[in-house]
Amino acid sequence: MSGPLRADALEKTTGRALYTADIRLPGMLHAKVLRSRVAHGRLVRIDATKARAMPGVHAVLTREAIEPGTVPFYGYFIKDQPIVALDRVRYEGDILAAVAAETEWQAAQACAAIEVEIEPLPPVPTIEAALAPGAAELFPEPPIGMVPHYGEGASAVARPEPNVCFAFRYRMGDAGAFAECDHVFEDEFRFSRMHHLHLEPFVSVADCSRGRIEIWSSCQNPFPLRKEIARMFRVPENRITVHVPYIGGGFGAKNNCKTEPIAVRLSQMTGRPVRFCLTMEEGFLTNTQHAAILRLRTGVTRDGTLVARQAEILLDAGAYSDASPLVAEKAGYRAPGPYRWRHVDSLCKCVMTNTAPAGPFRGFGGTQAAWASESQIDMIARRLGMDPLEIRLKNALSLGEPYMPGESGIDSDLGAGLRLVADRIGWRSTNRQPNRGLGIALGFKDGGGVNKPAQARVKVSTNGDIFLHCGTVEIGQGARTALAGIVARILGAPAHRVAVAPIDTDSVPFDQGTNASSGIAVMGQAVAQAASRVRAQVLEFAAEMLHASPAELALEDWHAVRGEERVPLAPLVMRHFGGTGFEFSAEGFFKARHDPRAPLETPCVFWEIGWAAVEVEVDRETGRVSVPRLVVSGDAGRALHKAACRGQDEGAAIMGLGQALFERMVYDGTTLLNGEALEYRAPLAEDLPAEFVSITQEQGHGPGPFGAKGLGEGAMLPIAAAVANAIEDAVGVRITELPITPERVLTALQARQGRSP
Amino acid sequence: MSGPLRADALEKTTGRALYTADIRLPGMLHAKVLRSRVAHGRLVRIDATKARAMPGVHAVLTREAIEPGTVPFYGYFIKDQPIVALDRVRYEGDILAAVAAETEWQAAQACAAIEVEIEPLPPVPTIEAALAPGAAELFPEPPIGMVPHYGEGASAVARPEPNVCFAFRYRMGDAGAFAECDHVFEDEFRFSRMHHLHLEPFVSVADCSRGRIEIWSSCQNPFPLRKEIARMFRVPENRITVHVPYIGGGFGAKNNCKTEPIAVRLSQMTGRPVRFCLTMEEGFLTNTQHAAILRLRTGVTRDGTLVARQAEILLDAGAYSDASPLVAEKAGYRAPGPYRWRHVDSLCKCVMTNTAPAGPFRGFGGTQAAWASESQIDMIARRLGMDPLEIRLKNALSLGEPYMPGESGIDSDLGAGLRLVADRIGWRSTNRQPNRGLGIALGFKDGGGVNKPAQARVKVSTNGDIFLHCGTVEIGQGARTALAGIVARILGAPAHRVAVAPIDTDSVPFDQGTNASSGIAVMGQAVAQAASRVRAQVLEFAAEMLHASPAELALEDWHAVRGEERVPLAPLVMRHFGGTGFEFSAEGFFKARHDPRAPLETPCVFWEIGWAAVEVEVDRETGRVSVPRLVVSGDAGRALHKAACRGQDEGAAIMGLGQALFERMVYDGTTLLNGEALEYRAPLAEDLPAEFVSITQEQGHGPGPFGAKGLGEGAMLPIAAAVANAIEDAVGVRITELPITPERVLTALQARQGRSP
Repeated sequence: MSGPLRADALEKTTGRALYTADIRLPGMLHAKVLRSRVAHGRLVRIDATKARAMPGVHAVLTREAIEPGTVPFYGYFIKDQPIVALDRVRYEGDILAAVAAETEWQAAQACAAIEVEIEPLPPVPTIEAALAPGAAELFPEPPIGMVPHYGEGASAVARPEPNVCFAFRYRMGDAGAFAECDHVFEDEFRFSRMHHLHLEPFVSVADCSRGRIEIWSSCQNPFPLRKEIARMFRVPENRITVHVPYIGGGFGAKNNCKTEPIAVRLSQMTGRPVRFCLTMEEGFLTNTQHAAILRLRTGVTRDGTLVARQAEILLDAGAYSDASPLVAEKAGYRAPGPYRWRHVDSLCKCVMTNTAPAGPFRGFGGTQAAWASESQIDMIARRLGMDPLEIRLKNALSLGEPYMPGESGIDSDLGAGLRLVADRIGWRSTNRQPNRGLGIALGFKDGGGVNKPAQARVKVSTNGDIFLHCGTVEIGQGARTALAGIVARILGAPAHRVAVAPIDTDSVPFDQGTNASSGIAVMGQAVAQAASRVRAQVLEFAAEMLHASPAELALEDWHAVRGEERVPLAPLVMRHFGGTGFEFSAEGFFKARHDPRAPLETPCVFWEIGWAAVEVEVDRETGRVSVPRLVVSGDAGRALHKAACRGQDEGAAIMGLGQALFERMVYDGTTLLNGEALEYRAPLAEDLPAEFVSITQEQGHGPGPFGAKGLGEGAMLPIAAAVANAIEDAVGVRITELPITPERVLTALQARQGRSP
Repeated sequence: MSGPLRADALEKTTGRALYTADIRLPGMLHAKVLRSRVAHGRLVRIDATKARAMPGVHAVLTREAIEPGTVPFYGYFIKDQPIVALDRVRYEGDILAAVAAETEWQAAQACAAIEVEIEPLPPVPTIEAALAPGAAELFPEPPIGMVPHYGEGASAVARPEPNVCFAFRYRMGDAGAFAECDHVFEDEFRFSRMHHLHLEPFVSVADCSRGRIEIWSSCQNPFPLRKEIARMFRVPENRITVHVPYIGGGFGAKNNCKTEPIAVRLSQMTGRPVRFCLTMEEGFLTNTQHAAILRLRTGVTRDGTLVARQAEILLDAGAYSDASPLVAEKAGYRAPGPYRWRHVDSLCKCVMTNTAPAGPFRGFGGTQAAWASESQIDMIARRLGMDPLEIRLKNALSLGEPYMPGESGIDSDLGAGLRLVADRIGWRSTNRQPNRGLGIALGFKDGGGVNKPAQARVKVSTNGDIFLHCGTVEIGQGARTALAGIVARILGAPAHRVAVAPIDTDSVPFDQGTNASSGIAVMGQAVAQAASRVRAQVLEFAAEMLHASPAELALEDWHAVRGEERVPLAPLVMRHFGGTGFEFSAEGFFKARHDPRAPLETPCVFWEIGWAAVEVEVDRETGRVSVPRLVVSGDAGRALHKAACRGQDEGAAIMGLGQALFERMVYDGTTLLNGEALEYRAPLAEDLPAEFVSITQEQGHGPGPFGAKGLGEGAMLPIAAAVANAIEDAVGVRITELPITPERVLTALQARQGRSP
């Protein structure tokens, strides 16, 4: 099923595609915010008198303008982030006030005229500082929150210690297994803080002028956003509509509330639509990936059998919890990697610091876990004198083997993928060049989200024009193309006959959100069911009209086909339903089956796997690492659109390469130094490997339609570790902190020379 | 089930309700049209060169700008109305060209600069002129069209003679029945042409700037409009979205295409959204009720038993067919009235004239039929010396008795309603004042539309907020209130928990249109089914969670109730479906069962009945008729919102009173003389009867939810005849032509005095 033109290709290449940033409503005002320059402090006084009197200004939202009875906090599990600062500021960039004015310029001018008095508190810039005894607490009072209930082996605690908002722990097997090991290795890894660098900024438009709340938002999760807004503003969910046009990239950042609460409140205050669009610079202050410290303690036997692993992961959650508890759950649960363990004890804590909030990011905790795990397994192999490929092949879970008790079986042949990328990079080749080395790694995550129901609807008009209604947003991943393709295939129609309806929460069926690579394996199943039901309806109708049985008939390009006979359906529909016709319509539903033994509520829907093999060249003079060759592979189960699958894997791999070599948000204390696109070093065209191979496997074991499964995160996961592994192969030094800058490599090379001259 | 606040009350009384006329899109242009001052002619030359160069003008649509491959004609059955004049003009007001400009003023200026040369053809101003031998033909070439297939007794012919576009005939029983009659009465009646006088003008906004066709329209039939636009512009139905906000009155006028094709084409030409809003004056030139000549030949026995009726109805269709064939079908089929006939032969023709097109109008052919039939029955009673009430009671069909073979049984007790209004007006009272008289009449129509499928969808969020999706537009009739009330009652929720989603053809389920009083009896059944299915889903879910059987549980305000136990549902949903919740969702469907013996494809869904009794006072000096007392009644089956039902009946009765006494479009040849609101005499507050009684019966026999049926047209039907009947009762003259102006009464009085001095 090779893909035709992507469903969004024409709109996007002709510039007609509508993004939230393009939305203009009559009478629309523009919002800007005043941000704190103090990282941690008590808000003593805020006075917007002058700002309110400035030209073009319609409203200023400060803590006094929060409507009584509303709940001005948001967040995934823990509702700790206020719409605007109430009593405290918690990072440089925290929002103190918002202004709605005729123009952005006027709003910005008014922000500058707001008088603020903040009494400083001791800043907490890092994980270490936050956990130090006597550290200032960001939340001396517990915020509203909840602790999820987990299945067997998993547990969580809220606020287990000062400045830790959430701790997740997963235990399996007997800790005594360590005693039976020949070796126990302890290593620490550090993971840098990245920004998502989505090209479309955080943006929303809210219109509360008609007694409802109508929102256009660049948000990955329209229904959860609706729920959050309903909760905060105490408005029923059927008086709120969230529209999501095309999204210009998100990579996890565009979850839950970001700009929306301020836009809504300003619209309520002014009775006018309000657009709130952040700059790229403000994006750096709004959501980031979690920096992390990861400590692994791994027990093995001398033949390289992995036996037991303890993990302690400290995530830097920044100033507000956002989705940190969920990321912690995933990082903790994924820390063992897809290997056969007898004992696992993994703990992950979210540590609050006076820095920008961290949240979901492509890979969702799995990236941090894979960096540490796949580095350490390589280190262990080298310590034992084993081939890094062999140790993985020896210990990797087999196809169908459950990851943990109660969990789904692994649905890719891990070894096949390892051998594939190894062969392609020339793993066995003995023709090594100086300062060049090879590295391999395996990335994996449970995919499809936790306990995620999805619904979809398919309808077909009299003329056979097909509508697909589903809440999966098009964020560039090709979801519309793939899902429309599923419908077309089931209904025997060419792909161009399927139109994917624009998303709003009134009209599309419920969906928990576009995340966790769930588009194909979760929503795809709901879509396939809806399409199959419509197909059954149509065939039943046609059978009645043609005095046949449905089983005798096939559907082909809006004809009922019986043997050689092809009967066009439109005239039959008109005859039966009258001149203005009819629409066949059905809904589909998918939710993972419940298993009380599953650690995370339900067994995971599918496993997203990424394999990578890389060749690096290290410049011993400068420490600079280049990547002449990169082989990356994901398993699509079945590719619904090959070009889109390759695009996803390539994008993920390059994002991984950025993480490996370049990207980090650099802080001086609590001050972000490189929070803009020009200063933040992301991979450039010149950084692309000269030989960059992406192989979409179609192993066929996915739970989605036709054996498909999700894709798009997996190929990011192994890259950083593969690069570090290749560096050790090339020059014998092990880098354990990301990104792998020339300075770090040079320092390591010099230390090694010092150590063994 | 008395109504709470109407669902649209707050929005409408606070001015927040959105109408199509309110739609403003960024970059939107405005359209104006150039209309022909010649009633009939050949378009020789049209030159827009100067207009195109005028300030603010973006495009001029003349016949040259019709895109090749498109089909520039529209109409219900017969596609004869061009987007702009192609070869001919056919009435004063026919559209020659359209301009899109920055402002309406600029567009109008540019229209005035278009040069037109028309070669006049002989005008055909009236039915008589059109049917005269040798009359000029409006359509020498047959337009695209189709003739529907009818059931037993009914048949139709397209273009049976020059200037007749369609003729419908219904025959039942043996014409020999006339021979068995004691008396055969032949009478002719004339019916005036009314305008709908909807306060919101014809208006639409089209946006073709993004590779799709998006339309906001004040149209009663969103899906048929989509189909027509798809056909004309050769665009798949899933690339067209028709949005219908609140409609500010339609009364039938806002069917099918009106302003939309021009808005679409101008938007295609300019790549900008285009708004095309007619003035009230242009409304008079766009759609009207059918003037008619009705000839009845009725055979009775001397005891007043109605035996046989022949009817010939000539409808003045104006210059284009619009929905005339459908109106003809209805007028012809309804001409016998709800009485027990042995023989019926009814013929109705649509005659083309060089006047404004006629189309659907509240009552839809039934008004014309009732005017003639209920007048003649009264005349017959008086000729036979019978009581006009008694002749109706004697001959009226009984409850459950089929109207015609294969047809549904009458679902109201006609006699009960007659006695009700007669008693209320004091029919038996002997205390008569001079120049005052009483009249009674019965209106009836088959309701619910022909062969009309309807679909609806109900969804309920985690918190029990209910969404209703259905294509029935809110045109002021209270449909949203009534349909939401059905859902609330079935789901055990207060009415305010139900939100009716905005209508667009992408997201709401298919519906053939808001017409024929179908909201309750057709859509109501689909809505009730959807709500019942959701209820079953929720109860099944709750039963599983509570280890109960669904039958033990009831739903009450989003609680599962088992005996004394009330379990809130939201926490159960969250527990099962996860933190972001879920929506229960189901669709419902209704279509009348097929019966091949039914004359009009399917038996009608319900019978809409209106009863009226009236007291008039005639001023013998001036001929002026006043109506001191009016009693009107409809049968709601079950009233879903009593105030809304009363409002519908009162509005219909006053519209009937306007028809009876005042309203007519006055033509001088082919020139309309009073085509504006100030000159067109509609009923004023001072015309309201001093005693105006409206009684909503709830006989309980409707097919809709809880025994409900449609309402809103029936009470218009009997008014004109009741007034004419009362006038004869008062002063002994019979007026057979509408409206019953003082001149006509005076002339009749003078003639009678002359006849019998």
